[in-house]
Amino acid sequence: MFGMIVRIEVYPGKRDEMIGILEESARNLAGCLSYVVAKDEGNEDAIWITEVWESAKSHDDSLALPAVKAAVPRGRLLVTRFEKVAVTTPVWNGAASAWPPAS
Amino acid sequence: MFGMIVRIEVYPGKRDEMIGILEESARNLAGCLSYVVAKDEGNEDAIWITEVWESAKSHDDSLALPAVKAAVPRGRLLVTRFEKVAVTTPVWNGAASAWPPAS
Repeated sequence: MFGMIVRIEVYPGKRDEMIGILEESARNLAGCLSYVVAKDEGNEDAIWITEVWESAKSHDDSLALPAVKAAVPRGRLLVTRFEKVAVTTPVWNGAASAWPPAS
Repeated sequence: MFGMIVRIEVYPGKRDEMIGILEESARNLAGCLSYVVAKDEGNEDAIWITEVWESAKSHDDSLALPAVKAAVPRGRLLVTRFEKVAVTTPVWNGAASAWPPAS
């Protein structure tokens, strides 16, 4: 298991656009077990991403996918700060069911 | 939607015990949509928790549940630092399915 907690800051007013790019690029990636995108309530330009992957390799492989490769330069135009806050080994998810339900 | 990203540090050697307490107390809580517990790879005494709740009320209500109330004093004995790193509004989870599968 491999995980990351990432904090991104974007130019003022660009958070929703950045979230849209994340939604397009990070949907149903192979080996991705959780990818929670959240707005920071203390900073209207900040986004948190909590990622859970089967392995570091599944994460690294995702970077070569066309949807991800296409998103990176679009996102880069919006981002003012990118911080890999933590690299983790996820061990558990207490939730009873998927969020959102698998479709 | 309501979320938090929390970082906990425990006394040396107590991380697995703390994770066990979290697993006992935070399983299938009402209104909890995701509760990812992860070990920090950069600090062997640190744990990250990424929480997603239907509402702030569902989070607050969980604190009154017997399993949670029983866990708090046990956890407090192990914790050296508790940091609410961010309060968030979660907006999206890109994973295709539950982790772990609902049971």
